Order: sequence, then structure tokens, then C-alpha cells
Amino acid sequence: VTAAPMTTSLPASALRAMEHVQGVRLIRMQRELATFGGRADGGVSREALTATELAARQWLCSLCTGPQYQWYVDDAANLIVRRQGSNPALAPVMTGSHIDTQPVGGWLDGAYGVVAGLEALHALDDAGVTTQRAIEVVAWTNEEGSRFSPGAMGSSAFSDPARLPAFLAAQDAHGERFENARNAALQATPAAQRIALGHPVHAYIEAHIEQGPVMENSGHSLGIVTAIQGVRWYEVTVHGSSAHAGTTPLAVRQDALLSAANMVSQLGVAANERGDEALRCTVGRFEVAPGSINTIADRVTFSVDVRHPRDSELDAMQALLHEVLARHRGACTYEVRVLMQRAPTVFDGRVLAVLEAASRATGTSHCHIGSGAFHDAMYLADSCPAAMLFVPSKKGISHNAGEDTDPADLIAGARALAAALVALAET
Amino acid sequence: VTAAPMTTSLPASALRAMEHVQGVRLIRMQRELATFGGRADGGVSREALTATELAARQWLCSLCTGPQYQWYVDDAANLIVRRQGSNPALAPVMTGSHIDTQPVGGWLDGAYGVVAGLEALHALDDAGVTTQRAIEVVAWTNEEGSRFSPGAMGSSAFSDPARLPAFLAAQDAHGERFENARNAALQATPAAQRIALGHPVHAYIEAHIEQGPVMENSGHSLGIVTAIQGVRWYEVTVHGSSAHAGTTPLAVRQDALLSAANMVSQLGVAANERGDEALRCTVGRFEVAPGSINTIADRVTFSVDVRHPRDSELDAMQALLHEVLARHRGACTYEVRVLMQRAPTVFDGRVLAVLEAASRATGTSHCHIGSGAFHDAMYLADSCPAAMLFVPSKKGISHNAGEDTDPADLIAGARALAAALVALAET
Repeated sequence: VTAAPMTTSLPASALRAMEHVQGVRLIRMQRELATFGGRADGGVSREALTATELAARQWLCSLCTGPQYQWYVDDAANLIVRRQGSNPALAPVMTGSHIDTQPVGGWLDGAYGVVAGLEALHALDDAGVTTQRAIEVVAWTNEEGSRFSPGAMGSSAFSDPARLPAFLAAQDAHGERFENARNAALQATPAAQRIALGHPVHAYIEAHIEQGPVMENSGHSLGIVTAIQGVRWYEVTVHGSSAHAGTTPLAVRQDALLSAANMVSQLGVAANERGDEALRCTVGRFEVAPGSINTIADRVTFSVDVRHPRDSELDAMQALLHEVLARHRGACTYEVRVLMQRAPTVFDGRVLAVLEAASRATGTSHCHIGSGAFHDAMYLADSCPAAMLFVPSKKGISHNAGEDTDPADLIAGARALAAALVALAET
Repeated sequence: VTAAPMTTSLPASALRAMEHVQGVRLIRMQRELATFGGRADGGVSREALTATELAARQWLCSLCTGPQYQWYVDDAANLIVRRQGSNPALAPVMTGSHIDTQPVGGWLDGAYGVVAGLEALHALDDAGVTTQRAIEVVAWTNEEGSRFSPGAMGSSAFSDPARLPAFLAAQDAHGERFENARNAALQATPAAQRIALGHPVHAYIEAHIEQGPVMENSGHSLGIVTAIQGVRWYEVTVHGSSAHAGTTPLAVRQDALLSAANMVSQLGVAANERGDEALRCTVGRFEVAPGSINTIADRVTFSVDVRHPRDSELDAMQALLHEVLARHRGACTYEVRVLMQRAPTVFDGRVLAVLEAASRATGTSHCHIGSGAFHDAMYLADSCPAAMLFVPSKKGISHNAGEDTDPADLIAGARALAAALVALAET
């Protein structure tokens, strides 16, 4: 899908910043950040607020030390560097992402958005540009949610500070409280001034890898993310009756596993029949009791993960799920529980227009795309105009040591980001 | 299915033995045996060769102590009591089953066949009958296989003593060797003489609960078991490709869970379409990796348990399984492994004819039936004429504390067993 031409024009300072992005410097920073928790297989293990992640935070602080810079850290341990603008009365433009990873993650997920933002600041320095608004680069705390649940704590608390107390009480698998880990992070970056959580932001842009195969398959280097899909998680429990596999005739069985397999199979057919490229429907968990070769199962619990950029389609899929399940009422009983739901996030039209103009200015091919994964930008969009910029993921691989992106695409993303940030900071 | 009338007539001594079966004594013995490992919920926990099971063995030895009795124990710790016949040159007739249970089992599985045999011996004593052949009642070691694998070690080693060395090396979950547990059993019954494993047997009858709902549903008190189904166990492993549930379009997925659910669902349809009451086809295990709500599964392993009294039908189902799996070759890759197979056991026509006559003599309704479960008789049938006699299981429940049988049916079974044993022992 190619968007209708937009007429937003970029200020000359935006183009100058873009031209001063240095690919070599960007990739070097990216590779150096990957040494914090780097693995022999090319992956990165740098979970939120571990000693490894705190060391990476200290290294970040060493990258911007001139008089135009001030580092901040807030009550959620979000780490922010501000490059001063000419008018301190105006709210800053913000970019960034996260530097925490899954237990075994890739070198780009999150980290790219932080490094690309820092490279934009360096490009501004080299170009001698002072923007009207300050520009901030942020590393949000605990986006992945693998160590402390839920994920995106930092951006979520930034958008609504009332969420912080519940997050502080969260514990990791070893019983360590998030609050203690947060305190260690506050102490790890003494050069960063404390700042209140949730200061006003003029606009937010997050650069990120796609984590899916759409852009690679369509051959685009830049993806302007118009929305983050809404998601609903269901848990279906199917009840049968446990009995001996050898002695119980097929006709008298209440086989929870067979009923559940029929449900999953028919849900798969129904989802495919909608012929909707934007629809996602996944059964990823399927647990059987008692789970013995020669015993008919009396209970199966399976998950259903449904995603779509439009809430109306999520409603339609929910109705379809109930319809498919109801077909099996004769063979078993079941319950459905909603585990989680989040409405789609539609990004801001003005920020998207700026990203469109910046992408055109880079001269690389770009597309509009929806995000299938959650991102910190989802929470920022609740409190300020926001949007995202994707670069492709090779083979769509992410949350995996094999995660990678062509360096040319990483550089194109940083160029577009620099131009867009300056354009927003001059308004 | 009602069998064609058989003309076997019972000797008068068989009828006299039958008339001396005492229901009250039978049920009392059965309940007393259930106190060894008895649970508050009515179930029994008496795994093979545990201290509880050894105490039950000692108690068994106390039940037959007259000069006509001799207890024996063999190298597999099978515990046997022989009631002398008038002609010591003739091979004995044997009956029995096992007294070990599942970790949580019922009060009748196995135990009933031993107790009904002992009651037949008591009835012979009361009737003053001396048969030509000796009659033996045996408690086979480790039928259930829940503590030491495989099951039916005692009867299997009796039928083929060459199997014993491998069994002796088996270990339970705590690393205890079967050999050590066996040695403790040999010492627990000092009154029992050591006997060589696998002595000649003229004929073997095993009484057992059905462990399925067929007889209760058809309203019969006695089931003459003509065959034990053959069984084949398969393990199917389906390979897909792990990916993010939110970012990966439906069209490009290799979803191992969806493919496996389709396979299981279609196998269920195909099995039902055969319209064969004797066919059993069960998927009882279904294990997913990584098993995360928001990750497309890259591996599913599921089991298939197929049973039928005819080998040709097992062959047909195997072909059908491969046909169903092959339909999904485009969506995933898979392998199939045969975990276990055992051909059907067809019981001996002469023993069946005697059971038919004995069942008629009791005046209760009886039917012919196949066994869906394995039993010690399966191994005995390899080395002597053998058959089984079933009594119904309420609601088909077994391997469960709720296992039960109407006392009238238990008594009818003991009466038929006594008559059949005497008839065989007089030939």
C-alpha cells in the first residue's frame, strides 16, 4: 500500500541533519552496545536492570557529554538525554526505545531505536544545528517484560505515573523486587539528574526493527507504522472424561483432546477464510491432562491470540471463536476466559506526515505498515502525538540470536529519523 | 454378540464346587485385601513389591494353610498356591491375576482375579472335591508397570524365562533395582518354596474386571473374553517454524500446532468413519514447543494408540494414519516412530468352551467380549491354553479410586471360575 502523496515539506535544517548521519558511527555504536551481554552465537542476553544492563546504561551516558547535553533519570529509571533547543519554554521532541532484551535476544530489538536516536543527535552536532525544541533520546525501562512482568513498565509509567506503585512491587523469578532493581539503576548513572516521571512531550517517534517478514518480502527499506494491532488473548478449557484408551469404545468417549483439536483446526480454517492479510490468529499453548498415551484426555487448555488493527475485526473474530467452540457442545463442555485485551493504537497523522516526508527525503523505498508486536510507542501514544518507523528484519527473525538487518537499512532508518526529529523540533 | 451354543458339559464335581462358593467370604477377602494400601477415598495404593504389597503377600499366604496346600515363589517373585490333585503327574490348571496397583488404583483391578481363585479353592475344600489335576492360584509380579517398567513382568518371565535378566536390571524412579525389590519379596514369604520359573500349565483362566463400560451397557454379568486387542503405539513429531504471533502473516506461517491439530482432527474423523465398534484410536499426549501464547509453535509431538482384535485392521489403520499425515506435507514436515506394537491375542477355543458351559451353569447372563486392556493372560496364552472371564465395571471406571463392581457380579464370576477350573482339572 502506497500512501497518498503528502505535502509536508522539511526545513533545511532537517535535511542538513540527515546528511550528517554517519553510517559507520551508527553501526559501531550498535555493535558496541551489543557487547553488553553479547553471546558467542551473535545474540544478546541483557535483561532489564541486570548488572549487564546497568553497565550498558553507563556506557550510553558516555556518548553525549558536551555542554548541549543533560542526562536525566526518572522514578521508573527511564534514562533520558536531552539536547538543548533554542527555546526552553517549548516541550521537547522525544525518540528512543529500550536496551533490555529477552533472556536470549538479538542485537537490534529496542537497541536500534536508542542508537539511531543518539546518532541523530551526533549528526545535529556535526551539522551545527540548534533546533527550537529540545530533542530527547530515551531508553525505556523493562520493555521486554521477561524479567519483571508486565512489559513496557517504563513507557507505561511515563504515560500514566499512577501505574508506578504496582510496578515497584513486581518481583522477578528470584524474588527480587522491581523497586530494588530500579534503585540500583538510579545509582548506576550518577551524572543523570532526577526528573519527575511523565514530563510534557511535543511528539514521539520510535525507530525499531519490524520483527516480521513483511518488509523484506515487499522489498522496502523503511516502514512508516500507522498503527499497532489490537490484541485479545483467550484461554479455552475443554472438559472431557478420562478413560482407558483400550477399553472405551469411540462412540461413548468424551475426548477432550479430540474436541480441542477439532476446535483449533476449525478456528484455523475460519481465520484463513476471512482472507484478511492484517488478521493474526494463533494457538500457541495446548496443555493436556493427564497426557498419557493410553488414557483419553479429560482436560485440555489452549490459548488463542487474535490481533488486528481494527477493533471491529477483533469483535468479529471473537464471535467466530465462540461460534466454532459452540459446534462442539455435544462432544464436550468448555469455558472461555479473556486473559488480556488491548485496543488498536492508531498513530498521529501529523507525525506520520513528517515521517513520510523524511522517508522520501532519504531516497529509499518505503511503505506503510501495521505493527504486530507491542512497543513503548503504544503507551506514548496515550499521552502525546506519536508514531513509529520500522526497518526490515531478515527473514522476519526476532527474539532470537539470529535477528539481523541489512546495515544499509539501519542507516536509512537513522537518516529518516534525524530528519523527522528536526522537522518536529522546528515546529 | 451371543455365541453359538457349545456342547461342553461340566462334571458333577464342577457344579458342586460352584455351589460351595460363598459370596460373603469372597467379598470379605476382597475387602480385607483392599486394606493393604487402602485410601480414605476408597482407592488402593499398592504398587509392585512395596512394603505394602509384601504385607499383602504375607496375608495371602495365611488364607490357605491346610495339608492340601503348598505355597511357591519363583525367580520373578510370582507367588503361587497349589491345591494338590489326585494325579501328581498331570500339569496343574492355573488361575490368578495380580495384586499390585497403579499409584492410585481401585480395589478390584487384578486383586479380584486372585481372590476369586482363592475362593474357588475354599469352595473345593468345603465341597470335599479332589480334582485329578492340581489347581494353582497365582499372584503375578508387577503387572501394572507403574513402578518398574515394563508391566506384566511376572507373567511375561513365566512364559519366557529368558526375559528375566533384563527385568532384574530395571529401576524405579528412586533408582531401586527390580532385583533388590524381588529379593525382598522372596524373603517376605518364607513359607513359600522356591520353584523354577515357568513350570508346565495345563490351562490358564484369569478372572478380571472389564475396566470398560461395554458389559454394563449391555447388561451382562459375565463376559467370556475371546481375544485381547492388538495394539500399536506411534509417536508423531511435527516440525514448523517458531515466529512472533503478532508480526507473522497467516499465509507465511509454518505452524506446527495448527498442522498437528489438523492431523489429530482428521484422524479422529477417519477412525469414526470406519464404523467399527472394535476399533480404538486415541491421541492422549500432545506436547508443544515452545508453548507460549504469542509464539507460533515450532514442534508438536503427539501419540497415537490404535487397537483392534485383528491385525489386518491394525494394518489398515496404520495406512490411514500415514495417509492423513501425508495430507499436511505442504504445511509442515513430520516423522512417525512406532513406539510399541503387539499382535492380537486370540484365546484358546477349548478353554472358552469350558467358560461358556460354566457361565451357563451359573444361570447369569453372559456375553462374549474382547479385552481392550492388556492382562497377564496375554503372556500365558503364549505358553498354554488360556482365556479370561470378565465381570462388569461400574461406569467403566478403572485405574481410579472410584472403580467398583456389583457384588452379585463378583460372586457370579467366582462361581463360574470355580466350575471352569474344576472342569479343566478333571480332563
